[in-house]
Amino acid sequence: MLKIVFVTGNLNKAREVAEILRNFRIDVEHVNLTLTEIQSDSLEEIAKASALEATGLVGKPVIVEDSGLFIKSLDGFPGPFSSYVQKTIGNRGILKLMEGIDDRDASFRSVVAYCDEERKPLSFTGEVRGKISYEEKGKVWAFDPIFIPNRKGGKTYAEMGPVEKDRISHRRRALEKFAKWYLKF
Amino acid sequence: MLKIVFVTGNLNKAREVAEILRNFRIDVEHVNLTLTEIQSDSLEEIAKASALEATGLVGKPVIVEDSGLFIKSLDGFPGPFSSYVQKTIGNRGILKLMEGIDDRDASFRSVVAYCDEERKPLSFTGEVRGKISYEEKGKVWAFDPIFIPNRKGGKTYAEMGPVEKDRISHRRRALEKFAKWYLKF
Repeated sequence: MLKIVFVTGNLNKAREVAEILRNFRIDVEHVNLTLTEIQSDSLEEIAKASALEATGLVGKPVIVEDSGLFIKSLDGFPGPFSSYVQKTIGNRGILKLMEGIDDRDASFRSVVAYCDEERKPLSFTGEVRGKISYEEKGKVWAFDPIFIPNRKGGKTYAEMGPVEKDRISHRRRALEKFAKWYLKF
Repeated sequence: MLKIVFVTGNLNKAREVAEILRNFRIDVEHVNLTLTEIQSDSLEEIAKASALEATGLVGKPVIVEDSGLFIKSLDGFPGPFSSYVQKTIGNRGILKLMEGIDDRDASFRSVVAYCDEERKPLSFTGEVRGKISYEEKGKVWAFDPIFIPNRKGGKTYAEMGPVEKDRISHRRRALEKFAKWYLKF
């Protein structure tokens, strides 16, 4: 089985990434490090800069992952700053901002960036379109209780089990692109 | 008159900084560059990293400035991500988040970071405590129309003229600390 180092300080993310890549017969070695993130409107730019830093620290080829929830009627907020927004105003704050707004369109985006000793990071993007719910549904992690992907069922990410979510998520889509490239690399 | 290079891509900020430092007999040379900002909860850390980058680019001692509005009842949101929040949800979004919240306490913080060829950035912090208004008052820039400093008058930053604001602002306080140090340096 092929191996890859995945660097993150977020254990939930590490679990998801390992489970998804196992489907592609890639074995994940998790390195628990919190990387510097730059401020940028572009998830790709943020993830590539982190991957470059991570390769330097770990001394091996690595992947990192960054994701964000982009809400159309809020001009893309919270976007790349999703984790800070979670820590402060949280899902309640998002729902308050969306009060009285009928256009609930949002997309969840994930960028996986790969970097090795050549120090030229590559990125792989996955996106899932959906809606912001009117209330939190299901527990778990981050924005999962307020994001309903556009598909049959109308469940939030948080109402799905991990197997169901990992089959359709933005993170899955980005990792699948990475895996197809990496297996041929 | 002493000189210092101030690096920013924000012309409003460049004007304010030049006017304030003129009071301390320091002449500002503005270099118009947009610097990388890291994501961090700490304005000091962000400003120091930017100052280090700026000295490298400009090849002279420089200052940079970063500021943020920290709202107590929102756990410090928008904090260091103030400019992204301005571009997306804006002042209306902040006022919506504050609906029904009686505790309007907030503080505006400014960090000036200095760096020279020794590449050991120093920072100077200024803070002004105040309240979030119930509506936007006055025009101008960024969060100025919704921030009322705790002082007589109850005016927002935006309702003050630039001379009045520059006499009491968080940016003034940080720059004053820098100036006192720099003049003796």
